[in-house]
Amino acid sequence: MKNGAAISPEWFAFDWGTSNLRAWAMRGARPLAEGTSARGMGTLQRAEFEDALLELVGGWLGAGPMTAVACGMVGSRQGWSEAAYATVPCAPLGANLTRPPVADPRLTVHIIPGVKQPAPADVMRGEETQIAGFLAQEPDFDGILCLPGTHTKWAHISAGEIVSFRTFMTGEMFALLSKSSVLRHSVTTGWDDAAFADAVAETLSKPETIAARLFQIRADDLLNAPADGVLRARLSGYLVGLELAAARAYWLGQRVVLLGAKRLSGFYQTALAAQGVATESVDAETCTLAGLHAAFATLKETV
Amino acid sequence: MKNGAAISPEWFAFDWGTSNLRAWAMRGARPLAEGTSARGMGTLQRAEFEDALLELVGGWLGAGPMTAVACGMVGSRQGWSEAAYATVPCAPLGANLTRPPVADPRLTVHIIPGVKQPAPADVMRGEETQIAGFLAQEPDFDGILCLPGTHTKWAHISAGEIVSFRTFMTGEMFALLSKSSVLRHSVTTGWDDAAFADAVAETLSKPETIAARLFQIRADDLLNAPADGVLRARLSGYLVGLELAAARAYWLGQRVVLLGAKRLSGFYQTALAAQGVATESVDAETCTLAGLHAAFATLKETV
Repeated sequence: MKNGAAISPEWFAFDWGTSNLRAWAMRGARPLAEGTSARGMGTLQRAEFEDALLELVGGWLGAGPMTAVACGMVGSRQGWSEAAYATVPCAPLGANLTRPPVADPRLTVHIIPGVKQPAPADVMRGEETQIAGFLAQEPDFDGILCLPGTHTKWAHISAGEIVSFRTFMTGEMFALLSKSSVLRHSVTTGWDDAAFADAVAETLSKPETIAARLFQIRADDLLNAPADGVLRARLSGYLVGLELAAARAYWLGQRVVLLGAKRLSGFYQTALAAQGVATESVDAETCTLAGLHAAFATLKETV
Repeated sequence: MKNGAAISPEWFAFDWGTSNLRAWAMRGARPLAEGTSARGMGTLQRAEFEDALLELVGGWLGAGPMTAVACGMVGSRQGWSEAAYATVPCAPLGANLTRPPVADPRLTVHIIPGVKQPAPADVMRGEETQIAGFLAQEPDFDGILCLPGTHTKWAHISAGEIVSFRTFMTGEMFALLSKSSVLRHSVTTGWDDAAFADAVAETLSKPETIAARLFQIRADDLLNAPADGVLRARLSGYLVGLELAAARAYWLGQRVVLLGAKRLSGFYQTALAAQGVATESVDAETCTLAGLHAAFATLKETV
C-alpha cells in the first residue's frame, strides 16, 4: 500500500468517527492507499465535511466521476447529513444510503445508515458496517459478535441479520476514571494480569461492589502502595466484570467472536476464557473495509 | 456575622479542601466572621499555604499569639504538612494534631489528622471533623452517619468512635458522566422525581444493569427525546441505587443521619425513604465548626 499519486482507484472508502477520519483509495475490495486526519465529525461544521474529505482524497481524484462510501458518526444528526437508522431485526446494511450535498462535480458520496433498537433503546453507527464486513466473509454466522471499543457493542447475529444488541460505556468509563477522576494518581502505568482476573471475577459475581471498590483503589494506593500496574488492571477488571455481568445473556453458552482492536479484544478474551467461554477474534480494519466494500457493491448493482 | 476589622477573635477555624479554603474568626464555638478563597490544597505548593491562610485571616490577627485549627486535605501527603491518619476503631479526633512550620510569629497552626481503615482500605480527611462535631452535640449516638458529597462516606458510629466506614465516588461519577462523557448532551438540565425513584429501584435490585443503562440514556434521548429532566434524574438515580446496593449493610434496619449539603442529602433521603428507611438530617457547616471547636478545646486543655 502506498501513499503516492500514481494510483488509479475505483472508489473511496471512509471510516468517519467522532474524533478521526480514515480514508482509503480502493480498487474492488483492495485498498491501494490510505490517509488519516483528525477532522472527525465532532470537530466539523456541516459546511466543512466536503473539504475534510477532499483534503485526504483530492490528490487521488483525477477527472472523476468517483464514488465514496462512508460509515460512522458522519451520518448522525450532528454530522454531514443524517442517515436515518435501520431498525432491528435487520441486515447490517438494511437501509438506503444517504447522499449529502457535494459541490465538487467529480464526486458522489454515500453514507451508510446506523442501526437502532427501539427497546431497550440502543443505537450504533459504524459497527453495522464492521458487522456487514464480517458477514461478507461468514454469511452463515449464527452467534454473538462483541465489538470492544470506547462503547463496546454486543450483537446477536442470526440469518444474516442483527437480531438485538446492547452498548456498554466501559471504555469511556475507564478513560474518564483513569484520566480525570481522583483515581488518576493511582492508575498511571503498568498492567498486572492476576489483578485484572481477580477484579473481573469480583464484579461479575457481586456487581454492586464496584461502587465501593472504585475509591478503594485510591485508598489502597495511599495505604499499601501495591506494585506498579496492579491498580490500573484492577480498575479495568472491575469495569469489564460489571459489563460481563450485565451482558451475560449474550455470552453464556454462546459462540462469541471478538471484532476490535487487538489489545482491547485481548482483555475480553481473557475475561471470557475465565468463564469457560472460548472466543475467536477477527481484525477490525479488515471488517470495516469489507463492509464498506459490501455497501459499494450494492451501489454498483443498483446503478 | 460580619466581615470587618472590628472583631476580636479568640482563634481561627479552617476547612481546607482540595479545591477551596474556608476560614472563620471564632470566639469559643461562635463564628464572628468568615472568608473563603479558591486556594485549595490542590492549587498550592508547600511554601504557599501560609500565605493563603494569612490572606484570609491576616486582617483579624492583631498582635497575636493566635491559634488556628484546620481540617481537610491540607493534612494530606500533598498538603501543607502530613497529619498521619488515626486508625479505626477510633474517636474521630483520635490522633495528635500536626503543626506545620509557620514563619509568622503571631500564629500557631494545628492540622486535624484524617482517619484510615486498613481493610477494606479506606481513608477520610475532613469528614472525621464533621463526625466529631456531630458527636459533640450527640455524644451517645449509636448508628449510621451518611456524609453525601463528591465522595460520599458511610460511617458506623458507636460509643463515641468510628467503628468502620466506606467511601463511594457517586458524586464524582455523576460529575464526570454528566459533564465529560457522551451523556453530557442528554443530561443537561432539569429534574424528574419519578425518574429518579425508578432508577434507584432499578440498580438497587439489579446492580449489574447499570453497565447497560448508562448508554441507554443517550440512546433513549436520540430515539425518544424524553421530557426535560428525566434523563438527568435517571443518571443520578442509577448511581445512587448502585451505591445503596453496595452500602446495604450500613442502612438496612439502621438509624441513619445525613450530614451534608441540603440538596444532596435530599436525594439520599428520598432514595432511602423508598426503602422504608427514615433519616434525620443535620447541617454540614454546623458540624464542621463544632468539630473544629472540639479540636481547639482539646488544645486548650493540654496547654
